[in-house]
Amino acid sequence: MDNPFFKNKGPIKISEILNILNLKENHLKTDKIVDDIKDLHSSEITHISFFHSKKYKSFAKNTKASFCITTESLKNDLPMNCTPLLVENVLVSTSIVTAKFYPDAINDNFDCSCSLINETKFKDKVKFGKNVLIGDNVTIGENCSIGHNSIIEKNVVIGNNCFIGSNTIIRNSLIKDRVKILDNCVIGKHGFGFFPNNKNNLRYPHIGAVIIEENCEIGCGSTIDRGSMSNTIIGKNTYLDNQIHIAHNVKIGQNSIIAGQVGIAGSSILGNNVKIGGQAGISGHLKIGNNVEIGGGSGVIKDIPDNSKVMGYPAKNFREFLKENR
Amino acid sequence: MDNPFFKNKGPIKISEILNILNLKENHLKTDKIVDDIKDLHSSEITHISFFHSKKYKSFAKNTKASFCITTESLKNDLPMNCTPLLVENVLVSTSIVTAKFYPDAINDNFDCSCSLINETKFKDKVKFGKNVLIGDNVTIGENCSIGHNSIIEKNVVIGNNCFIGSNTIIRNSLIKDRVKILDNCVIGKHGFGFFPNNKNNLRYPHIGAVIIEENCEIGCGSTIDRGSMSNTIIGKNTYLDNQIHIAHNVKIGQNSIIAGQVGIAGSSILGNNVKIGGQAGISGHLKIGNNVEIGGGSGVIKDIPDNSKVMGYPAKNFREFLKENR
Amino acid sequence: MDNPFFKNKGPIKISEILNILNLKENHLKTDKIVDDIKDLHSSEITHISFFHSKKYKSFAKNTKASFCITTESLKNDLPMNCTPLLVENVLVSTSIVTAKFYPDAINDNFDCSCSLINETKFKDKVKFGKNVLIGDNVTIGENCSIGHNSIIEKNVVIGNNCFIGSNTIIRNSLIKDRVKILDNCVIGKHGFGFFPNNKNNLRYPHIGAVIIEENCEIGCGSTIDRGSMSNTIIGKNTYLDNQIHIAHNVKIGQNSIIAGQVGIAGSSILGNNVKIGGQAGISGHLKIGNNVEIGGGSGVIKDIPDNSKVMGYPAKNFREFLKENR
Repeated sequence: MDNPFFKNKGPIKISEILNILNLKENHLKTDKIVDDIKDLHSSEITHISFFHSKKYKSFAKNTKASFCITTESLKNDLPMNCTPLLVENVLVSTSIVTAKFYPDAINDNFDCSCSLINETKFKDKVKFGKNVLIGDNVTIGENCSIGHNSIIEKNVVIGNNCFIGSNTIIRNSLIKDRVKILDNCVIGKHGFGFFPNNKNNLRYPHIGAVIIEENCEIGCGSTIDRGSMSNTIIGKNTYLDNQIHIAHNVKIGQNSIIAGQVGIAGSSILGNNVKIGGQAGISGHLKIGNNVEIGGGSGVIKDIPDNSKVMGYPAKNFREFLKENR
Repeated sequence: MDNPFFKNKGPIKISEILNILNLKENHLKTDKIVDDIKDLHSSEITHISFFHSKKYKSFAKNTKASFCITTESLKNDLPMNCTPLLVENVLVSTSIVTAKFYPDAINDNFDCSCSLINETKFKDKVKFGKNVLIGDNVTIGENCSIGHNSIIEKNVVIGNNCFIGSNTIIRNSLIKDRVKILDNCVIGKHGFGFFPNNKNNLRYPHIGAVIIEENCEIGCGSTIDRGSMSNTIIGKNTYLDNQIHIAHNVKIGQNSIIAGQVGIAGSSILGNNVKIGGQAGISGHLKIGNNVEIGGGSGVIKDIPDNSKVMGYPAKNFREFLKENR
Repeated sequence: MDNPFFKNKGPIKISEILNILNLKENHLKTDKIVDDIKDLHSSEITHISFFHSKKYKSFAKNTKASFCITTESLKNDLPMNCTPLLVENVLVSTSIVTAKFYPDAINDNFDCSCSLINETKFKDKVKFGKNVLIGDNVTIGENCSIGHNSIIEKNVVIGNNCFIGSNTIIRNSLIKDRVKILDNCVIGKHGFGFFPNNKNNLRYPHIGAVIIEENCEIGCGSTIDRGSMSNTIIGKNTYLDNQIHIAHNVKIGQNSIIAGQVGIAGSSILGNNVKIGGQAGISGHLKIGNNVEIGGGSGVIKDIPDNSKVMGYPAKNFREFLKENR
């Protein structure tokens, strides 16, 4: 995963990791350090990984990670070189350790690094309204404009010929050339991802970004959350109408058209040339093919193959929907 | 009802009340005064009450109120000590009288009492962004932050360790400890409650508040309206995603999880540990039990008992929904 | 169509129009000029028109336009006085020519003509919050208030006794007397209308306005787009709740009540005394009669006659809906 914005605060001593997980492993040499947390497949010898489900068994057997957060029942699938750290809830513990490496990816408090744009290097380059704020680590290309009261918080790259409306907030986002983001949007905040806990829900880090490809338009009052362990992506030349909500990790393809008040839940992946009517909803973790048309008001709760036209709640073949509702 | 914010402009002479209701009751001693307007059960001897439906007959018989707005057909159920004021539409007349006691609870014009936070006593206590405004009668606890362009209008109490995002507006609200309210929200405006009238709809006063209990999180672009005659309440450790609308008088329990673009209509009451999927809607005046799960996109139009899982429009038993839609 | 705001940049030489349409018509006298683009029926001798479908044949036969954008197969229905300009896609070419006459109606970049209200003639007339901005060509009546951070961009007429909330943006709109527009709204931006094109969608000009008639109220976080070739209209004494989306060219009648999160797609026309429950959606280009009631969560996909009560997705007779869902 491309993680363009969040700084890794590692290396961290394994003793410290044991400590935050409330583990005592006296046999471990406590002066070892780890550089980063990665999935089983991507980990190198200096990393800690996590293994929470049998379906990742084959990755577990071959991981290069020196440490792995896992359970008593799964630990035997790990190779000799990998020391298991045994916990009750792997994902919660992984979240805690990830937060240690990437503490800035948990909280989305307002960016107090912001300055008024006319006190920054952008004052002669960008066309801007009143009261525009710019945070640290922001890049803006040629011929861009930013409307009144908009806030470009830290970790934003804006390409050339982009137009940002008024009252819009952007952070942790990569905006390519010729993108228009209209008024009152919030782009790049963390997603609605957390572990429920009756005393105090535990939010997990969102180390992904929002990537909006060339020529896109995002309508007024829309929200696009950044990804947790991957990016949220809007493909080239895709247009979103007003009041749309795109959750974390969603990927939308190119040349798609999404009408007002549509909502797409976390981690769903949409192909190219997808058309979605107003107020339709797509559940999480689904795969929507290329050239799919989804009728207004539909509720999509399963994968949709390429070249399909669906409508209804739950969404079904369009002709079938019409026939049943004649 | 707890009414923490709206000041009672009473006592008011009964002659004045007769006047605004266009009533002439020559036999009444016009120098009597009343202190407040309350429901039949809560009224004391110095109050005026209202009685608009037979189902409140038992309360009517025992009311201590000295005056009661009611109709010709209901007046005989009132006790001797209570003088009926006979009108055509009890609720409209009650609204007019309530507005006389609580004139500030009708109009939600912007709060012109606001000052820039760095001109207030909060400048050294709160971490704040650019252009933050604070109205009269605001309290803010320890270790809070308020983002750019946010407006804390009059009548707001914020506890400790609270984080308010940018471009958010709050008024008439009680925010407990460790609450996060993200960007672009509007919390505490009056509800969508009024008496339709073809010349000019008559808005009724909203004298309730919004109460957000400890550890809650409210997503971007959400709106939570304050109550009319009771409070709108979000229970402890409940998380709301983006673009959610909570109408007036709604009460949500603890440890609940509400996904994006959900809407809950006026006066519905939800239990604890309720999970609601994205874009679901709940009609007004319903009772949703504890541990209820409501699938994404559902439309709930009747009460749901404890421990149920429902989906569909109208929402029904989850298994039944799946079976019918196989 | 009333087009109160967008200036016609014509007259334009016909040679220039041929040029932007990539047409070579050597037999045309290239020094002719045209004043405006209009539909077949409204055109005068100095205008250019467009003819894209056989259903407008009778208008085509009688048009007074001197030029008409059309196709090889339709050209023979035009009268002798009208020179056809033959193109592949009439609507795309019409859009290109309209954009030439009305270039300001395509892009909705933020209005850089805005000044702080206390630097304008309105400073003593209007009650206003902090950081209120006013653009060119704005008129505001008596006894109005505008909340903090709101932006009245160019081309806005506000009547008497109007109340605009905070963080709201208005442009290209006609707001009549006693209208309330609450917080965080965006009124008058262009609609979601464009010709899809896989390299770069082609937006068409929106030369209409938003007209909000007397006594209306618009809830928080709502968006009302202006029309493309006609106006978007909200009739007298109609109330909209929070988070409503009204697309371009929609016309809503008088005394209507529209609950939270409703969406109405482009060009639909609603009668008077219409009641719409929360989260209902209405497809585009429909006709909804007078005194219609639409239940919450409904999806309306066909015309609804006067005095009907409907519910469901797709919306059907209310009793039938209840019977089927008992």
